[in-house]
Amino acid sequence: MTLSDEVRIALDGKWRHVREQSRTELAAMELAYDLDLDIDAARERTLRQLHGLVPTGVPAAGFRTEHGGGGDPGMAVTGIEMLAQFDLSLMVKAGVQWGLFGGAVENLGTERHRDLIPRLIELDLVGCYAMTEIGHGSNVQHLETTATYDAETQEFVVDSPTPSATKDYIGNAAAHATVAAVYAQLVTRGENHGVHCFLVPIRDDQGQVLEGVEVGDDRHKGGLGGVDNGRLAFHQVRIPRVNLLNKYGDVAEDGTYSSPIDDVNRRFFSMLGTLVRGRISVGGSALAAAEVALSIAGRYALQRRQFGQEGEPEVLLADYRLHQRRLLPLLARSYAYRFAQNQQVSRMDRLQRATEPDAQQQRELEGRAAGLKAIMTWHASRAINESREMCGGAGYLAENRLTVLRGDIDVFTTFEGDNHVMLQLLSKELLTSYAKEVGGLDPFGMVRFVAETVADTVRERTAASQLIQRLIDAAPAGGDAHDLLDRGTQLSLFEDREQHLIETAARRLQRAAKAKGEEAFRIFNDAQDHLIRCGRAHVDRVVLEAFTAGIARCEDEEAADLLRQVCTVYALSVIEDDLAWFMAHNRISDQRAKAVTQLLNEQLAELRPHLLTLVEGLGVPEETLGAAMLLKQ
Amino acid sequence: MTLSDEVRIALDGKWRHVREQSRTELAAMELAYDLDLDIDAARERTLRQLHGLVPTGVPAAGFRTEHGGGGDPGMAVTGIEMLAQFDLSLMVKAGVQWGLFGGAVENLGTERHRDLIPRLIELDLVGCYAMTEIGHGSNVQHLETTATYDAETQEFVVDSPTPSATKDYIGNAAAHATVAAVYAQLVTRGENHGVHCFLVPIRDDQGQVLEGVEVGDDRHKGGLGGVDNGRLAFHQVRIPRVNLLNKYGDVAEDGTYSSPIDDVNRRFFSMLGTLVRGRISVGGSALAAAEVALSIAGRYALQRRQFGQEGEPEVLLADYRLHQRRLLPLLARSYAYRFAQNQQVSRMDRLQRATEPDAQQQRELEGRAAGLKAIMTWHASRAINESREMCGGAGYLAENRLTVLRGDIDVFTTFEGDNHVMLQLLSKELLTSYAKEVGGLDPFGMVRFVAETVADTVRERTAASQLIQRLIDAAPAGGDAHDLLDRGTQLSLFEDREQHLIETAARRLQRAAKAKGEEAFRIFNDAQDHLIRCGRAHVDRVVLEAFTAGIARCEDEEAADLLRQVCTVYALSVIEDDLAWFMAHNRISDQRAKAVTQLLNEQLAELRPHLLTLVEGLGVPEETLGAAMLLKQ
Repeated sequence: MTLSDEVRIALDGKWRHVREQSRTELAAMELAYDLDLDIDAARERTLRQLHGLVPTGVPAAGFRTEHGGGGDPGMAVTGIEMLAQFDLSLMVKAGVQWGLFGGAVENLGTERHRDLIPRLIELDLVGCYAMTEIGHGSNVQHLETTATYDAETQEFVVDSPTPSATKDYIGNAAAHATVAAVYAQLVTRGENHGVHCFLVPIRDDQGQVLEGVEVGDDRHKGGLGGVDNGRLAFHQVRIPRVNLLNKYGDVAEDGTYSSPIDDVNRRFFSMLGTLVRGRISVGGSALAAAEVALSIAGRYALQRRQFGQEGEPEVLLADYRLHQRRLLPLLARSYAYRFAQNQQVSRMDRLQRATEPDAQQQRELEGRAAGLKAIMTWHASRAINESREMCGGAGYLAENRLTVLRGDIDVFTTFEGDNHVMLQLLSKELLTSYAKEVGGLDPFGMVRFVAETVADTVRERTAASQLIQRLIDAAPAGGDAHDLLDRGTQLSLFEDREQHLIETAARRLQRAAKAKGEEAFRIFNDAQDHLIRCGRAHVDRVVLEAFTAGIARCEDEEAADLLRQVCTVYALSVIEDDLAWFMAHNRISDQRAKAVTQLLNEQLAELRPHLLTLVEGLGVPEETLGAAMLLKQ
Repeated sequence: MTLSDEVRIALDGKWRHVREQSRTELAAMELAYDLDLDIDAARERTLRQLHGLVPTGVPAAGFRTEHGGGGDPGMAVTGIEMLAQFDLSLMVKAGVQWGLFGGAVENLGTERHRDLIPRLIELDLVGCYAMTEIGHGSNVQHLETTATYDAETQEFVVDSPTPSATKDYIGNAAAHATVAAVYAQLVTRGENHGVHCFLVPIRDDQGQVLEGVEVGDDRHKGGLGGVDNGRLAFHQVRIPRVNLLNKYGDVAEDGTYSSPIDDVNRRFFSMLGTLVRGRISVGGSALAAAEVALSIAGRYALQRRQFGQEGEPEVLLADYRLHQRRLLPLLARSYAYRFAQNQQVSRMDRLQRATEPDAQQQRELEGRAAGLKAIMTWHASRAINESREMCGGAGYLAENRLTVLRGDIDVFTTFEGDNHVMLQLLSKELLTSYAKEVGGLDPFGMVRFVAETVADTVRERTAASQLIQRLIDAAPAGGDAHDLLDRGTQLSLFEDREQHLIETAARRLQRAAKAKGEEAFRIFNDAQDHLIRCGRAHVDRVVLEAFTAGIARCEDEEAADLLRQVCTVYALSVIEDDLAWFMAHNRISDQRAKAVTQLLNEQLAELRPHLLTLVEGLGVPEETLGAAMLLKQ
């Protein structure tokens, strides 16, 4: 086994068998997007490919065995991520059908909707997921579509009261779906019980749009040409009472509303909580796309020469310091996020297999998934963009794939909600845990309390936490710049920054809790960039810990050593990016700070000889990269 | 006249009449790119549009009156920038034909090539500009194509000896050009005299490719679908001796080489120097595209509401602090770069009208154009990307234009050479001026010398320099954070950072001057990121000075006040981005540094009420934005 095999095994994680299977099966399917197809042909092609996925078992994996599924949530997410390495249109269409639509039926429906699951797995039933409205992107709780119960006919009347209530950007809506999972305000007996999800037939078997349903086509987008995104408006559309996905709220024949969760907010967030797998898939898929782009740029840097000394062969791009600074930190981040992603997929898998999932762990997973989704999709955008630039004019040709990836990945930063909203969600969750612990204490008491206990509330008790504490405890004291190479020092800097940001944010927002209306909004709004920082710092810390834990699990010593170098580059590059904060808050002295860039540069030079190993370790086989320029030489 | 009119007038600059004319004429041409066209139809459409531009006089403006042109270089560049506000494919195709191809004929040719100019202005002759080779993107000096003189037939034999010598990414090559301006190593009597430019016919009047010419098609790209980029390889293609564009080097009938410039390096850079207008156009066009994107995102932020307090209308995006932080600094940068761009267009215009242009000013212009091109194209990429994100799912629909802009602008960061190469070019130029002044002094002497005189070498004697010096002299001393709002303080921070970076880079590279081979490369390579920083810092300083000078020229007091606020946001946002450097080098104390973000946030809140004025001031009329979502509400 080569070193790159060992690295890849560490990175592949627990569902390595799924990755290996996908690498073979998907490579045989010729999935590369064809830009010569017109919009209709491209959509039909992607639908055909979707049918081709059914026999792989990946679609079924996401559903529980008692519903005819494979009962392997980890496999479902890993399978989606692998699709993303081949074709993001197909990944999105699969995510819409089996993840969002199928997920809604399974997680929000009850016994009476179970028969649909085998049909939707097999694509006998193609659905869409009609949540987002034109006027209400991230603010789902206040969407306008209504579903009003009519006890006389035992039907719900689904209606879009205004143009801004139109559902938009809905995958599968423009052409292929026959049914929509529609989020609407449930109204019965004149009372609004908040957002619920309803199955609304939108096309008949011949594909004709049903009466009262108005379908629009979003047509061309920045990418994802194989996905038929569209608009849906409903004009007094009647559906049977039983089409309500009634797990979290039901309406009896006579119109009586009932729910296992009394509080309307808590009910709403419980429903949304079922979406966590989608969020994890979106982040993981973006990361997979970044892995493809960095594999292309990494290999190009090892074959492309430019400039050099008179009379000598030109210098490889990979040997320029600047190119190392552009490429290697992104590669290190990809490694880091992969370990974090694998960790969260494992946790999600464990929770979703449990009969009684722990509510606290569920909430933590949701918050973290939101944060990782934001950071990983931004990383993907940046990595793909930089990869394109690193390949110059050649990178701009579609035949070298980077621009296709770029166009496709663009929307991932606002999929599942704008990334800034995602980070605020995470911060809110962090502050909520925090507030629970510190609630009711006066400011001075709080500071004391914080000093004593926040370390524990911030750092969860992961399997690796003892290791991490040991590393922190072993960190050398004192001000030598080389301390920054010490993992314990890095871990403690990351943890300390997060704590400080959360504590100070909490203090600012406590004032808002006592204020009213305008004033409360002003306090919150003033702190908004602070909250975003909390979320980022949390993700950085979680990622560094996941990387550290991943290295500890790596059984090959040589691979572990290389991963340690990569981890150091990751940590230093995060520190360099936020150096002003560490300096202004006296965490890093001016003297040490000056050395950070030099330290990082040295680490990059040490990593340079391993570039090919690291690219191979990403696990995207060269023959599936689909970049013409790499084949030419 | 409204305030936004006054602001727009200040921003429009000297060629405001050209902008006003283009706004009307181009709006009437229906230029928006049509994604439903296949690749051939899209190219033909853009060619037709190109013909539509001829009567506007903009194409002729770039050529000297004695050659049948309009003799207005400033108008030529401004006209190209305005095209970029409407359709970047058309802008690129115009730039290839009249800027690059036409520019080569006019600036590298002599009397014997003059007859071609009226023909190429009228599109009676369509050409392409065959410089870049697959194996040699930015390293033009070492391209492989040869043009070997055969005295027997008085012909040059043009040849691509290897596949990597193939010209690639050449606009107009795949379909429309009948002649190529080909850069090749000129060989006569067995001696290589370096790169020269030759006119090589590639198609006959019927569009058939000529013998010995091999044409490839680059097909789909990340954007710019209206431009027919292609590949050209030459197999012993014979052209008449007079097809050499012979201004900087000629071959007599008997094969004798002669040139007005003896030194081969200096000759090469003199030829490249004629390209400065292209570089200025690329940067300015990218800026124009950013203006469109920010106009769309800015207007969207003023109509789109999301979240808010229970029972109240939702809050406008523009009222969120985070949205202000995302949008307003980009808007401020666009304003700042516009002033800098206008300034450099004026200088270019003056130099290119002169009969004996000042060589030193020419070199300065070239260096600065390279740096501004890098910074402005990156800014455009970022601004368009962020604008897309700020518009969420709607931003991803092609009908809202942002993704089309994004795809088109992507390649601008590597047009005319990779941006990092551009910044190194600038830094080299800065260090060369520096080295001339300090050459030969010992290190201690140098430091003294630096302290006394570098201020003058760094800061050119612009018309505004007295004003700038006055502002710097009036800057308050001492450590109060509010100093950072003082323009003099900002100017002096920017200037001081640049000086420090150049001095320290010079000291590092002086060691390389004495070293040899490997060791010299290592020293240079180690300093590469330092050099890039020099270039960036120089551009930041030049931009702030141009903004300051632009405000001084603004005659409307209210508009000038608003521009001052925008300038402050620009300066603070640059300082915030490089805060770690200012702290580590004791330019800003930890205490003051902590206040920077808060100061910037306050400035953003003060700018918020003027958002619509600032968007309107960009001068992209609402009806030409071409974003469907803005018309819906």
